[in-house]
Amino acid sequence: MKIAVFAGDGIGPEIMHEALRVLDALALPDVTLMEGYVGGAGYRKLGHPLHADTIRIAHEADAILFGAVGDFECDNLERHLRPEQAILGLRRELTLFANLRPATMFAGLEEMSALRPEVAGKIDMLIVRELNGDVYFGEKGIRTLDDGRRQGWDLMSYAEDEVRRIAHVAFRAAQGRKGRLCSVDKSNVLETFQLWRDVMIEVGAEYPDVALSHMYVDNAAMQLVRDPGQFDVIVTGNMFGDILSDQASMCVGSIGLLASAALGETQTQYGTKGLFEPIHGSAPDIAGQGKANPMAMILSLAIMLRHSFGLEAEAVRIEAAVAQALADGIRGGDLGGTAGTAEIGDAVLARL
Amino acid sequence: MKIAVFAGDGIGPEIMHEALRVLDALALPDVTLMEGYVGGAGYRKLGHPLHADTIRIAHEADAILFGAVGDFECDNLERHLRPEQAILGLRRELTLFANLRPATMFAGLEEMSALRPEVAGKIDMLIVRELNGDVYFGEKGIRTLDDGRRQGWDLMSYAEDEVRRIAHVAFRAAQGRKGRLCSVDKSNVLETFQLWRDVMIEVGAEYPDVALSHMYVDNAAMQLVRDPGQFDVIVTGNMFGDILSDQASMCVGSIGLLASAALGETQTQYGTKGLFEPIHGSAPDIAGQGKANPMAMILSLAIMLRHSFGLEAEAVRIEAAVAQALADGIRGGDLGGTAGTAEIGDAVLARL
Ligand SMILES: CC(C)[C@H](C(=O)O)[C@@H](O)C(=O)O
Ligand SMILES: CC(C)[C@H](C(=O)O)[C@@H](O)C(=O)O
Repeated sequence: MKIAVFAGDGIGPEIMHEALRVLDALALPDVTLMEGYVGGAGYRKLGHPLHADTIRIAHEADAILFGAVGDFECDNLERHLRPEQAILGLRRELTLFANLRPATMFAGLEEMSALRPEVAGKIDMLIVRELNGDVYFGEKGIRTLDDGRRQGWDLMSYAEDEVRRIAHVAFRAAQGRKGRLCSVDKSNVLETFQLWRDVMIEVGAEYPDVALSHMYVDNAAMQLVRDPGQFDVIVTGNMFGDILSDQASMCVGSIGLLASAALGETQTQYGTKGLFEPIHGSAPDIAGQGKANPMAMILSLAIMLRHSFGLEAEAVRIEAAVAQALADGIRGGDLGGTAGTAEIGDAVLARL
Repeated sequence: MKIAVFAGDGIGPEIMHEALRVLDALALPDVTLMEGYVGGAGYRKLGHPLHADTIRIAHEADAILFGAVGDFECDNLERHLRPEQAILGLRRELTLFANLRPATMFAGLEEMSALRPEVAGKIDMLIVRELNGDVYFGEKGIRTLDDGRRQGWDLMSYAEDEVRRIAHVAFRAAQGRKGRLCSVDKSNVLETFQLWRDVMIEVGAEYPDVALSHMYVDNAAMQLVRDPGQFDVIVTGNMFGDILSDQASMCVGSIGLLASAALGETQTQYGTKGLFEPIHGSAPDIAGQGKANPMAMILSLAIMLRHSFGLEAEAVRIEAAVAQALADGIRGGDLGGTAGTAEIGDAVLARL
């Protein structure tokens, strides 16, 4: 079992350290960790946020455990050298086109949400975000027009097969949940999302057991505030998914607890190859202070074991230990508590 | 004073009726109303959502009072015949590039928001949305690739002068408020918004009294849930503004009360020419039942009188009448009450 460990920037290394302690405690046989430097850390050590050697490790591994990238000191570098290119590059290199981002209220943590407890308490959704296309991966540039004006431009597009493969992931996910899929688009204005909607309807014919609905993205942003409990599975494009999944995470109120999976179609001898990361960022303001909550990172380890290694029992064991730590009142600073990174790691280990 | 009256679809005509009663009660001299049909109504009456005759009226008028467009029965028409093209077309035809969307908590209505009262109560922001560019107005189409796959595409772009003119509107708005401007972009991924950020910084140099900050759109969607009270003025592009301003409106919890202005650079003898509309949609589900809350439409009339006709006293008079009606407990269905369209109109008129 080859696991690429890319801790990245900011709080990445600290929280990764705790996740690796948990992995170690499971004493799984035949685990090989392959460390790599990504983001600002990659730029500093290797001269590139996603160095060719790092890509090689990613290809060789059965799964990637990813911390966070983002480093203000690198923001003025040329675009291809910025930290974000590491995560964008890995998604593209490994064709990790399906981002699964669950947003579920943790029992007892309703008070952490800015939403009223009766609204927040009902949140139990999965956002399936397409991760390989859309305007984030189109041709782009800054050009000078004939009249001398500068213009920035980016091409948004989806081809039908790109929509179809994410549609299948979403419909299957809905089958495994409450059977409701809401496709979010802006087909009233964008041709990219007119095609998106057409293909969703086509694929939907193969899943008569799933109730498919459609919602414009502006309305979806409203509904996620008004009544996020109405959603089961949401499927949407890369950009809308970026915005809405972050919004949904914040509705839950504890983004220090949310993990995400980026999956493709590659099957290893163990399971589906993927990249697993907390949804929170690199939090440079608290980096290196031992304050970061490692729970989302530890939960990312759990879903990695589930998806990429078929180790359901171990995944459940970790998730239960985290839940127990929370139930016992262990709270990081993000949840208004005082427990530090190592202390939370200890608490989870003690309950494993 | 020539006012184009475009009631549009769904509840548009009902709520417009109440706004016109209020206008009538002001007994302003020399008002000429120029009625026109837009959206699905335009398609049905004139064969086009924005007929050439309607455009002519819009050009001739000093201001446009707009209801709402949107009609499910027209959703399968060719794109250029769909209701939305009316509002997109008017924005473009009249170069209405600046959309001002205030989101302010109405005192006493904190309980309407899905956010906790202590979070919602602090909301007092203005979103300045660019309205003439971005991917909503770029070239677009559905093409067949060489290998036979269909692909939908839309070109996102901003030229520097397009960013500059909306920047000036936003900086001036911030000067008139608390002096804080947050520019929302996705410059870490999109070149369009790298240029956007560069130009915002350039223009910012001319406004040393305004504190300019920058935020990525995914983070902005989170912050609008976590702590919307942190924002004074937000400026952003057409698409991000579409999403975030609807989200912000819903944070306030009473979208039946929010009006918006779309302004350009045209000055008439009275003021700045613009289009004024409620931020809510055509609500086809309750159309024709006398249930719609006309307050946002009436408040749209007020801001029209302010911006396009310099009639500040009349605008304040209308706004005070609406506020008094709310204070007296008059509540439409959208606010959990039972007052119908005409009853609310009567209540406002009685307090004028
Ligand atoms: C870091 C950035 C490029 C990335 C994205 O926008 O995809 C992040 O916001 C995310 O959601 O994973
Ligand atoms: C109707 C639609 C085209 C429009 C838009 O997306 O601009 C609407 O959502 C709005 O925000 O005014």
